[in-house]
Amino acid sequence: MVWKPPQGIFEPMTNLRLIVNLGAGVDSLVGRDDLPRNIPITRITDPQMSRMMAGYVLFAVLRHARDIPFFEQAQRSGEWTYRHPRSPEEITVAVLGLGQLGAKAAHELQRQGFRTLGWSRSLAQIDGVACFSGMDTLDSVIGQADIVVLMLPLTPQTKQLFDRERLKKMRPGAAFINVARGSLVSQAALTDLLKSGHIGAATLDVFEREPLPVGDALWSMPNVLITPHLASVAIPATSAKQIAANILRVAAGELPDNIIDPLRGIKPRQSPCMEPQLQHTEGATGMGGPSP
Amino acid sequence: MVWKPPQGIFEPMTNLRLIVNLGAGVDSLVGRDDLPRNIPITRITDPQMSRMMAGYVLFAVLRHARDIPFFEQAQRSGEWTYRHPRSPEEITVAVLGLGQLGAKAAHELQRQGFRTLGWSRSLAQIDGVACFSGMDTLDSVIGQADIVVLMLPLTPQTKQLFDRERLKKMRPGAAFINVARGSLVSQAALTDLLKSGHIGAATLDVFEREPLPVGDALWSMPNVLITPHLASVAIPATSAKQIAANILRVAAGELPDNIIDPLRGIKPRQSPCMEPQLQHTEGATGMGGPSP
Repeated sequence: MVWKPPQGIFEPMTNLRLIVNLGAGVDSLVGRDDLPRNIPITRITDPQMSRMMAGYVLFAVLRHARDIPFFEQAQRSGEWTYRHPRSPEEITVAVLGLGQLGAKAAHELQRQGFRTLGWSRSLAQIDGVACFSGMDTLDSVIGQADIVVLMLPLTPQTKQLFDRERLKKMRPGAAFINVARGSLVSQAALTDLLKSGHIGAATLDVFEREPLPVGDALWSMPNVLITPHLASVAIPATSAKQIAANILRVAAGELPDNIIDPLRGIKPRQSPCMEPQLQHTEGATGMGGPSP
Repeated sequence: MVWKPPQGIFEPMTNLRLIVNLGAGVDSLVGRDDLPRNIPITRITDPQMSRMMAGYVLFAVLRHARDIPFFEQAQRSGEWTYRHPRSPEEITVAVLGLGQLGAKAAHELQRQGFRTLGWSRSLAQIDGVACFSGMDTLDSVIGQADIVVLMLPLTPQTKQLFDRERLKKMRPGAAFINVARGSLVSQAALTDLLKSGHIGAATLDVFEREPLPVGDALWSMPNVLITPHLASVAIPATSAKQIAANILRVAAGELPDNIIDPLRGIKPRQSPCMEPQLQHTEGATGMGGPSP
């Protein structure tokens, strides 16, 4: 059972039958050259972890949709400043990454009435969510959104996908939420665009370097909320049962559940909650998979 | 059509057939002595207004459940301070007031996995919500909650219901959310208890005096979030249709929908969303009704 295992750790383990990644994100295992061949690698995919993530995303999206950063700044000046609330139908939210966590979050957002767009490598289908796939649609999805929610997996292909050029495709004043991985984004560009106001506000749970260093400009920006990488966490009580069941499967000569492909990330899987019919589309981008 | 009509306004209106309260809260009409007799009074009860309110309550509850006030203070000091998230099942939320708005909010909260308690004058029944009624259960409900959400109507009976003694019944460190009316609460006591930390944090949308006066101590309290009375608003596009339909009903000699009883507040009604089977219980307290 591993979480961010150091290079070479598996080499002496000649009797290895199963590698369990102790979380949902497999970025520390994708693309390594030191993984034993033909040993299944599994990850935790816990409905309760998805719900915890969806709860954080709901919080962050509602925070921006209800103009809370604006009211926080009014409060700092001790001023009662009214801004009429928008109906959720008037607000477009784009969820980038529609794996188990992203699909659940998108489902909850459309339930609250938001116009919800989804984007993923392979085309997903989620009731009430307008789904897009492929690199050629990404900038258009970003450009339509009042609130962008980053839920993509980190792979060699998605690293720094949100560079300065792409972040500039966001609508002026739109909000940015990152609950996936800091290295998906150029943090320097994000900081500049938050300073200039091109990006209106952000809720950030992940960073290029964690802990976010003392003195980083993000700490003191009034339009940024920082949380220390806890949007979702593995829950021991439920993870342990899932791991135990997989150990029993392997011991019985069966394949475990929730296997990942370390060459390209996570295999598309049916989500029990909304049964997205994942389809591979032409022009798939080779990104690490539909799940953060 | 009225909103907070001045005393005596109805007297010259001898042909009046219908009074439309342009919102959900009828506190400005309950208990007045200048209302014409036998003229129906209706209020706006809009599913979209309920959803907007539920969205604000979800935001505020998730904010406290995910320790955001704690992380905001860490951010002010520029410090990465981790606090492990609690699973929603470990967090008890009490919704006080289970009218159309309160019932919808309680329904959404239990869907997110929170242990949800509900309290109202007459006993409600909402799937997944432990419902209580009557004054003899109020302090016990408050005392069990990590997060208290005030959604009661303001009536002569509920005014200052949350005085110092009752607020002290809250668990030390619990959070307080008021989206109903400021006058339900002793604001001086609330301020003192937030200062002492007995109440850990608050999200306040309503106040005894609105706008909240410049210089009020609440403005600068780091554990308080202030918004300017907009948790939910009447939505003209849908309200207008509801009002027009009621005018047509009255013109046809029928009774309008959403009638209130100005002597005691709002009549219990079936909510189309969760069909609470409202029952009058012994020891009903004469409060203004189950709906804010």
